[in-house]
Amino acid sequence: MKSFDTIVVGGGFAGIAAARELYKSKQSFLVLEARDRLGGRVHSSKVLNGADIELGGQWIGPGQDLMYQLVEEFGIETYRTYDTGKAVLDLNQRIKTYSGLIPKVDPLSLYYIDRTIKRLDKFAATINLDAPWSHPKAHDWDSMTLESFLQKYVRTKKALKIMRAGMETVMACSTAEISLLHVLFYIKSGKDINTLLSIENGAQQDRIKGGMQSIIESMAKPFMDKIHFENPVRHIEQHDDGCIVHTPSGTFLARKVVVAIPPVLAGRIRFSPSLPIAKRQLFQKIPMGIVVKCYAFFDRPFWREKGFSGEVVTDENCPYQTIFDNGSPHAPYGVIMGFSLAQRASELMKFSKEERKQKMIEWLERYFGAEARNVMHYEDKCWADEEYSQGCYVGYFPPGVWTHYKDEIRKPSGHIHWAGAETATIWNGYIEGAVRSGIRAAQEILSTDG
Amino acid sequence: MKSFDTIVVGGGFAGIAAARELYKSKQSFLVLEARDRLGGRVHSSKVLNGADIELGGQWIGPGQDLMYQLVEEFGIETYRTYDTGKAVLDLNQRIKTYSGLIPKVDPLSLYYIDRTIKRLDKFAATINLDAPWSHPKAHDWDSMTLESFLQKYVRTKKALKIMRAGMETVMACSTAEISLLHVLFYIKSGKDINTLLSIENGAQQDRIKGGMQSIIESMAKPFMDKIHFENPVRHIEQHDDGCIVHTPSGTFLARKVVVAIPPVLAGRIRFSPSLPIAKRQLFQKIPMGIVVKCYAFFDRPFWREKGFSGEVVTDENCPYQTIFDNGSPHAPYGVIMGFSLAQRASELMKFSKEERKQKMIEWLERYFGAEARNVMHYEDKCWADEEYSQGCYVGYFPPGVWTHYKDEIRKPSGHIHWAGAETATIWNGYIEGAVRSGIRAAQEILSTDG
Repeated sequence: MKSFDTIVVGGGFAGIAAARELYKSKQSFLVLEARDRLGGRVHSSKVLNGADIELGGQWIGPGQDLMYQLVEEFGIETYRTYDTGKAVLDLNQRIKTYSGLIPKVDPLSLYYIDRTIKRLDKFAATINLDAPWSHPKAHDWDSMTLESFLQKYVRTKKALKIMRAGMETVMACSTAEISLLHVLFYIKSGKDINTLLSIENGAQQDRIKGGMQSIIESMAKPFMDKIHFENPVRHIEQHDDGCIVHTPSGTFLARKVVVAIPPVLAGRIRFSPSLPIAKRQLFQKIPMGIVVKCYAFFDRPFWREKGFSGEVVTDENCPYQTIFDNGSPHAPYGVIMGFSLAQRASELMKFSKEERKQKMIEWLERYFGAEARNVMHYEDKCWADEEYSQGCYVGYFPPGVWTHYKDEIRKPSGHIHWAGAETATIWNGYIEGAVRSGIRAAQEILSTDG
Repeated sequence: MKSFDTIVVGGGFAGIAAARELYKSKQSFLVLEARDRLGGRVHSSKVLNGADIELGGQWIGPGQDLMYQLVEEFGIETYRTYDTGKAVLDLNQRIKTYSGLIPKVDPLSLYYIDRTIKRLDKFAATINLDAPWSHPKAHDWDSMTLESFLQKYVRTKKALKIMRAGMETVMACSTAEISLLHVLFYIKSGKDINTLLSIENGAQQDRIKGGMQSIIESMAKPFMDKIHFENPVRHIEQHDDGCIVHTPSGTFLARKVVVAIPPVLAGRIRFSPSLPIAKRQLFQKIPMGIVVKCYAFFDRPFWREKGFSGEVVTDENCPYQTIFDNGSPHAPYGVIMGFSLAQRASELMKFSKEERKQKMIEWLERYFGAEARNVMHYEDKCWADEEYSQGCYVGYFPPGVWTHYKDEIRKPSGHIHWAGAETATIWNGYIEGAVRSGIRAAQEILSTDG
């Protein structure tokens, strides 16, 4: 059996960020990755003889400082997400177009949307990101769902529908499933709601030339020989002086282990002796969101010619909460991407891929005209369908979990340290958060090594 | 590889009830059980040279018709749970005693408790147990936690504390974690709140001489040779004409499989091809409750001599939401059992067993006097600590799950059928529900076989 200072479980951005710190500190280490590729919930691929397609995480935006540092370090080019022209709002089977951030609805609905966003931002600003459970109102906020909050403060149905579509696009779960306290934590973690929802000056501002996966490949390049692919970890034994890590194709020794995968997947690894009860309960209580990214490729972005930005916000009649122009200036194609999330995603996945394609054509035709019928290529990716993700963007906290388990999500368990976007305090759920969590876990190990 | 008509995964009451139906129908079958014993979340043991101790499920009560049928069929004796004398209420660090069902609190708190129970019962009565998601108010009720409901209708702090202790004892999770719709379903599934909370005429009325596990042992007796112990199922392959079931010690073939384990454990089995997305999401979204049963044994039930029934209801200052006299007329000992549930259980388990024992002595002394110091034996059982349960009594539905996934919990997946207390419509979460679920799953298989 080969022996290492540290074994990293998971070759996503958290795991590779951790490995990079260990590499810089000249530790011996090994990364065990279940898939045959790096990136985890980031997966850049190609279609149509070379057009980029981002099947997973794809954007960076202001405030994600480590991501911009990585981009600069590796000389990777970024480009702006297309954001010119009028947006579409599809509510109660009526389509309206609008410019700017403010959707065209009645003044009362606008008032409620504005007031609710301000209230969420104001509450969020008071959260301590290192300890959301310590807030004087933590128990109240963690006892209710986001939906209970919305129903209390949003008094028109239209405003409620818009808030749901927006918050579901941010959280990838239904407003009924998630703790208000967690939403407030998540908002603060990424600054504020406008930052999370926006393209310009927001979390969707910039894209990566060559695909997001090129960043992690650059990060891992110096130590690719230390990454074992197709090595899902099934069992971790802890002993006084280290760990034994079992995969179907080998057994490895290490003094320390970084587990850099979502909680639900960590719960499927066997640990001997058992982890503390609170940790095991937590693994049951942080389910993954559900996202299907649905792509239609055209010979050109015909909607731009008609003055559309490609952005659409819809109500529950449409399979996609939000739609974006996801084209790149480096390829001639027109690319539209629909986010189908939460319950709408589960419903969409009951249809065959061909049926999903037909649905997308119908909805795009409705929004942008008959040219939508000339789709060259359809592709979609349901992240709940991936054995080694079980969902996207991130594990979310239902009510009662933050105040019950407190710092358990990040607390080391003997020789085992925990990373992953779910453990991040800043940009929780984002690639930036994953990178930060990996660095933090590596630093825990490096500091205990004296 | 040996081949069978059906393989049953799990030797709890659901699995053995299914196996019994298959046995009666002369099917060939095999039960694969991870532990070295039958019973799952029921575990009857012995302490002190032969005194019975029920570490898991232990009671039956009126309405649990199949359990009484089983008891009669096997000639097993039952006895009444001890229920004579005054109960104790410990609120805001003040102890009061009372007789009957109505705790001694101020009239306004009593009014709120009574009104809230009636309201929950009234709403529960309108639920269709086969389809709780179909209720006109299902979305409203599933969008909120039980705690949100209580905070709306219970306007005194004392009443709120009593309602929380009662409902946490019934549900084994915090009122903040659970969907109101699921609570209403659960109440109706077991008739009404008083039935779930009561000893006499309630779900805690009767106990089993020789222990609850003796029932399942009688059920399984004719086919013990068909049960493989210490065979945790790790992987189930589905093919056109049947399944291949893998355990560390063998591989087995069957036309059909009954998976009779909690959803969270089903999620830890690998399925090839993958199960439908909705099923896999559901496995992430039904966490187990958490219960520690804490026992103190004395040479005699000294509290009875002082006129106490042994029943205590407490607020969050005490590690046990509720305490019961758990003695049997067949042994001379005095036996007190405290239920530590939800957050109080997680907190309690941070202490060593010796510390937990000292805690119990202190609290019992507070309630029943100095004789509590003469404890002969202390034993406790944390069900979240069991690898093959991961919690108790049952998996619960957080907000948004019932209305999102609807009948997915019971829907067969190809050759795989689903049983377990979580899938029951009548007495969900109880042993009676587990038995009913096993019979239902077996009937699904027997009916498709024509």
